[in-house]
Amino acid sequence: MLPWDGLDRRYGPWPEGVQVHVWDGTTPDGEPADEVLAQVGLWVMPYAVPDAARLLPRLPRLRAVQSLSAGVEKLLPLLPAGVALHNGRGLHDASTAEHALGLILAAQRDLPQWVADQADGRWEPHFTRSLADCRVTIVGYGSIGAALERRLLACEAQVVRVARRARPEQDVHAVSDLPGLLPDTDIVVLVLPENASTAGLFGAAELAALPDGALVVNVGRGRTLDTEALLAHTSTGRLRAALDVTDPEPLPADHPLRRCPGVLITPHVAGGSAAFRPRAERLIVEQVRRFADGRELLHPFPRD
Amino acid sequence: MLPWDGLDRRYGPWPEGVQVHVWDGTTPDGEPADEVLAQVGLWVMPYAVPDAARLLPRLPRLRAVQSLSAGVEKLLPLLPAGVALHNGRGLHDASTAEHALGLILAAQRDLPQWVADQADGRWEPHFTRSLADCRVTIVGYGSIGAALERRLLACEAQVVRVARRARPEQDVHAVSDLPGLLPDTDIVVLVLPENASTAGLFGAAELAALPDGALVVNVGRGRTLDTEALLAHTSTGRLRAALDVTDPEPLPADHPLRRCPGVLITPHVAGGSAAFRPRAERLIVEQVRRFADGRELLHPFPRD
Ligand SMILES: NC(=O)c1ccc[n+]([C@@H]2O[C@H](COP(=O)([O-])OP(=O)(O)OC[C@H]3O[C@@H](n4cnc5c(N)ncnc54)[C@H](OP(=O)(O)O)[C@@H]3O)[C@@H](O)[C@H]2O)c1
Ligand SMILES: NC(=O)c1ccc[n+]([C@@H]2O[C@H](COP(=O)([O-])OP(=O)(O)OC[C@H]3O[C@@H](n4cnc5c(N)ncnc54)[C@H](OP(=O)(O)O)[C@@H]3O)[C@@H](O)[C@H]2O)c1
Repeated sequence: MLPWDGLDRRYGPWPEGVQVHVWDGTTPDGEPADEVLAQVGLWVMPYAVPDAARLLPRLPRLRAVQSLSAGVEKLLPLLPAGVALHNGRGLHDASTAEHALGLILAAQRDLPQWVADQADGRWEPHFTRSLADCRVTIVGYGSIGAALERRLLACEAQVVRVARRARPEQDVHAVSDLPGLLPDTDIVVLVLPENASTAGLFGAAELAALPDGALVVNVGRGRTLDTEALLAHTSTGRLRAALDVTDPEPLPADHPLRRCPGVLITPHVAGGSAAFRPRAERLIVEQVRRFADGRELLHPFPRD
Repeated sequence: MLPWDGLDRRYGPWPEGVQVHVWDGTTPDGEPADEVLAQVGLWVMPYAVPDAARLLPRLPRLRAVQSLSAGVEKLLPLLPAGVALHNGRGLHDASTAEHALGLILAAQRDLPQWVADQADGRWEPHFTRSLADCRVTIVGYGSIGAALERRLLACEAQVVRVARRARPEQDVHAVSDLPGLLPDTDIVVLVLPENASTAGLFGAAELAALPDGALVVNVGRGRTLDTEALLAHTSTGRLRAALDVTDPEPLPADHPLRRCPGVLITPHVAGGSAAFRPRAERLIVEQVRRFADGRELLHPFPRD
């Protein structure tokens, strides 16, 4: 079951024997009948995840789910045992990395100020920060982090890589090295998945270790950054922030973070751009072919 | 005569025999006496160009002027014959290219909308355009254009290069090829100097040749883009624009361009960021050493 039609027309015919049912997963009228659902072996979920809790019990022959998200923490507890989960690792790299770069450039080059000046009739140029020459620490140096790094290096920034464990041969630092790295960081970018080890990972101690004026960027998951601790540093103007994900989400209309100077917020849109669709289509076609051939699917997500 | 102090402390001593006078070029109190000015052979102008018309006649021994700008069109008519002009080619590449990239990402990813939503308490995500997969035509593929290209390629965009004359071996198209290139262009970036050949270069015909929804970026000089023609296409929402330079400049408070949907304006700040200073310092030190040794200075600017 696929969320989109026409893939065979754009990418060539489906393999012999494959039956494809298309449903966008959100509108009730296109919803397949129970007889059809009973045959589904591979479900490619739409990006806007449908009511999986209601649908999964109606898919008795389901063997694999392909999510188009990289973060699958909400789906995991719903999946029956024996159903393999494949995530959208890589699909959002271009979109998310480019949005992170946009947030960083907007913050460094004072774009929110210029937007206000444009509307208010002002023309008052001033020197700004730059991204070039900055030291950027990427916390969660995975698929998106590597895509972001390529963009940052092209912008003449330096990149420091941080993941769970050190990988010295790849110049990756362990997260336990953060206390030594943060005082020399101009921009820290969180690209962490949400799980038990990352909740509140970036908190009061980490924020306090950053130098005055540093920029905190979050494009991973809101709960990996301690909102109250961030507020303490941004409300005084000591730190700046650019956040695509927040805790809570949606961020309430009257949340104080919205009015902090030097804080820029976008409503969890980093992954959702035109860059997503062609990459998702190529993955779906590949996975359906692998499924039909009985080969291993790409991007298995560990189920425990 | 240099605009900044302390370069010898940061980059090593000046060559034997060199006398350095420091004046920021704007405050009257630091202004050197006539006896000092009479000795100046090399004048490194401050970035914010001082009243050159008043100062140049007081520099009888002047042999060379180093401007820290890439665009020197206002300085050219003021320079006495026999004084060599050296421009700031390359100094602004990182800063200007990164600002151009910031403008492009802001426009593609709807940042002005999110800035407004943040202030107004909204959290209404929607899919946006991306930069990845876009075809970007750089009109004025020079020093800044090449720096921008490196950033765009890292963002998975395609780049089409346009300069005065075709250089097929470098895949550079002639400006006369624009009619064939513009219909397939998602984003056009103007990085043109101001001179007789570029005034109004991008006008009604070029704008009309762009497809619906295309983005017009200008980080070169305002007069190279026809403002009235742009208004005709942006006021209807057919084209979008992101402009660091405008015609006129400053853009009046009530100028209609400020209120066009999909138009983003910054007040000529692309070159003015923290990326500029260290690059300018390295050039100044190099030029003073060359001047003292009687060697050719870098970046001579043609004087006719
Ligand atoms: N804002 C959006 O629209 C958007 C879009 C897409 C994705 N996301 C989020 O971004 C996350 C990352 O995506 P990805 O594709 O880059 O994932 P990924 O390739 O799996 O990379 C995740 C990285 O996080 C590191 N990590 C995990 N737990 C950690 C811990 N406790 N301490 C330090 N580092 C830790 C991993 O370290 P190791 O390498 O050592 O394992 C890995 O480097 C996703 O999980 C998703 O939640 C957000
Ligand atoms: N917004 C800002 O803050 C800011 C900052 C710095 C610079 N600037 C402006 O940006 C301009 C470009 O800087 P740069 O350092 O990249 O200069 P550059 O290296 O000299 O490049 C200029 C490019 O423009 C092309 N060109 C000149 N006249 C043309 C014409 N009539 N038609 C088509 N192409 C033409 C040149 O083509 P050829 O290669 O064929 O000669 C060259 O490729 C500067 O002159 C300055 O005005 C603005």
